[in-house]
Amino acid sequence: MSQTAPLTFSATDHALMARALRLAARGAYTTRPNPMVGCVIAHGDEVVGEGWHQRAGEPHAEVLALRAAGDRARGATAYVTLEPCAHTGRTGPCADALVQAGVARVVGAMRDPFPKVAGEGFERLRAAGIVVESGLMEAPARALNCGFLSRVERGRPWVRVKLASSLDGRSALANGESKWISGDASRQDVQHWRARAGAIVTGAGTVLADDPSLTVRLDPAADGSAVPFVPPLRVVLDPGLATVARGRVREGDAPTLYIHAPDAKPPRGLTTQLASVPVHAGRFDLDAVLALLAAREINEVQLEAGATLAGAFLTAGLVDEVLLYVAPVLLGERARPLFDGLGIETMAQKMKLTIVESRYLGGDIRVLLRPDPTG
Amino acid sequence: MSQTAPLTFSATDHALMARALRLAARGAYTTRPNPMVGCVIAHGDEVVGEGWHQRAGEPHAEVLALRAAGDRARGATAYVTLEPCAHTGRTGPCADALVQAGVARVVGAMRDPFPKVAGEGFERLRAAGIVVESGLMEAPARALNCGFLSRVERGRPWVRVKLASSLDGRSALANGESKWISGDASRQDVQHWRARAGAIVTGAGTVLADDPSLTVRLDPAADGSAVPFVPPLRVVLDPGLATVARGRVREGDAPTLYIHAPDAKPPRGLTTQLASVPVHAGRFDLDAVLALLAAREINEVQLEAGATLAGAFLTAGLVDEVLLYVAPVLLGERARPLFDGLGIETMAQKMKLTIVESRYLGGDIRVLLRPDPTG
Repeated sequence: MSQTAPLTFSATDHALMARALRLAARGAYTTRPNPMVGCVIAHGDEVVGEGWHQRAGEPHAEVLALRAAGDRARGATAYVTLEPCAHTGRTGPCADALVQAGVARVVGAMRDPFPKVAGEGFERLRAAGIVVESGLMEAPARALNCGFLSRVERGRPWVRVKLASSLDGRSALANGESKWISGDASRQDVQHWRARAGAIVTGAGTVLADDPSLTVRLDPAADGSAVPFVPPLRVVLDPGLATVARGRVREGDAPTLYIHAPDAKPPRGLTTQLASVPVHAGRFDLDAVLALLAAREINEVQLEAGATLAGAFLTAGLVDEVLLYVAPVLLGERARPLFDGLGIETMAQKMKLTIVESRYLGGDIRVLLRPDPTG
Repeated sequence: MSQTAPLTFSATDHALMARALRLAARGAYTTRPNPMVGCVIAHGDEVVGEGWHQRAGEPHAEVLALRAAGDRARGATAYVTLEPCAHTGRTGPCADALVQAGVARVVGAMRDPFPKVAGEGFERLRAAGIVVESGLMEAPARALNCGFLSRVERGRPWVRVKLASSLDGRSALANGESKWISGDASRQDVQHWRARAGAIVTGAGTVLADDPSLTVRLDPAADGSAVPFVPPLRVVLDPGLATVARGRVREGDAPTLYIHAPDAKPPRGLTTQLASVPVHAGRFDLDAVLALLAAREINEVQLEAGATLAGAFLTAGLVDEVLLYVAPVLLGERARPLFDGLGIETMAQKMKLTIVESRYLGGDIRVLLRPDPTG
């Protein structure tokens, strides 16, 4: 068992895996439905090649790193943030490429749960006499690909609920108006989270109240010129297709999918994508909605909806992450809640979350939270 | 005009005034109704004496620093966070003591607006040939004594509203229950803010719902043993004296004052303090409440009340600071608001605040805010 993970990795191992993870993250806006992967090839702490998967259909991280390393890959250690693939997909198996290049050791952050890999990649390397050690910095590697892993392991996308809230926890005025609670910096920050989502999901109510475009608008001045991204699918949950005829959500280059009740009658000549999902007691089966999106290879869903739909996802236990922009304003007791329909009557029923991170954004505070599995 | 503030103070001047401010802050729990004051006496950057005002009736900061310096005060610079007094109060005038000790230069953070000082202290020093320079680090010096300055300059205490809120901006369940929204660390932190307040104000509704003691409970284990403090006055706004017969707010050593409507009938044999304040349309005249507390030499008020009273102070424009403990829990759409009665209908009416500071406390976030005068 000398080829399994040792008790400790060296400082160099950690530093180079951290580098591979940073490289992998550069693909956040473009690799989907593939996972983000980074690879560093080194002799000791001397890096001889590196690469990251940039776009589905294009070369994998390992292939790019091997190309950069050339003959110097022989006898080197390859750091990979995800188990190398063993199957021929749109590109050849990376495991074979590593073997052919004469790499002596492969350090992986984690096993790839994708059924066509699932240990087979590491196995093929070991069979060729390469030392394979896996599990280095697995937690950040898993966090990086939370969406891909959720789809492969749970059969549904990772669901992030994005909300802008007043200090007193209100997401809109009583009349539905919500423009704008949060500041410019917060609204620009949202664009980055949209860019990494496979789908941005909203409800018919939000389309009627806000008429959002739900496109990614990265500011070249603020974010560097020409940040490439793949436009996320825009998804409108609209049982009766009441909003299908109009709205900015249908405009522009990004695709739009309307999810409707089975008995809805699509208007004639409709050119947009449609899908039907069961409705129970007037509410979409949200498990079915997410299964449908997973089947379309959506890794991350960003929910940008009103309190009703956000509350429905939350009470169904389908929220993985809450991205909350809190603006230091008060909207008062008549304004709309952050989540509706929670139906909490006693302190024991309160829903607990955990703060993952918080930071200032302009005059606002951005808080990232995850539901607390113990609460 | 060579004795007025120069364009710049030296780095040493800044460092020693910062030291004097830190010393002054040590009196936060004990000097009231007096302001906190610190004094450092130095030759260049060599400190020869320092002191801070510890308790009303005891020596002022300058006197303690001069005692420590002894003969070395001659020719030295004295850094004082507030203009030295020129009048004989419970102690002799500090300005005279500085003159007698032969101090060559006095650097002040700010003028004392207290009518018996108000420039007279600096004037007396100048008349004795001492170089006087004022205005160094005036902003933090003012912030330190926000309560004293508010009472002297505005005739009312500084009002801090303390609230514990869920992530969705709720201060209690629909049934009034609020124990506990925030965590242990937040609740312990509140004790420090209570300790520096001259009065802790609540409403009859909170007394009935929560039966709070409103005492200061500093944890010796967490805060060092035997932190001295002067127990703040506990104030209950109770128009009809409905809660006067019972409750933990009457127990213990701290004094309690009930403020009632003019037509309330105090029960026979009542031993607690009482005061009458006009009521308009069923609501206390909050300006009159604060004027009454200022007349009792209260510098800082900490309001620990429900959404109705907090909202009333806020809409009356009488809130200087909001101390908000946000716990990462959701209480849902039926729970009580953070502030009630704001009556906001349009986005233009939203109330703007500015975040002064935020930090983690246990699993919660503490946010200190001030109403934004522009919003």
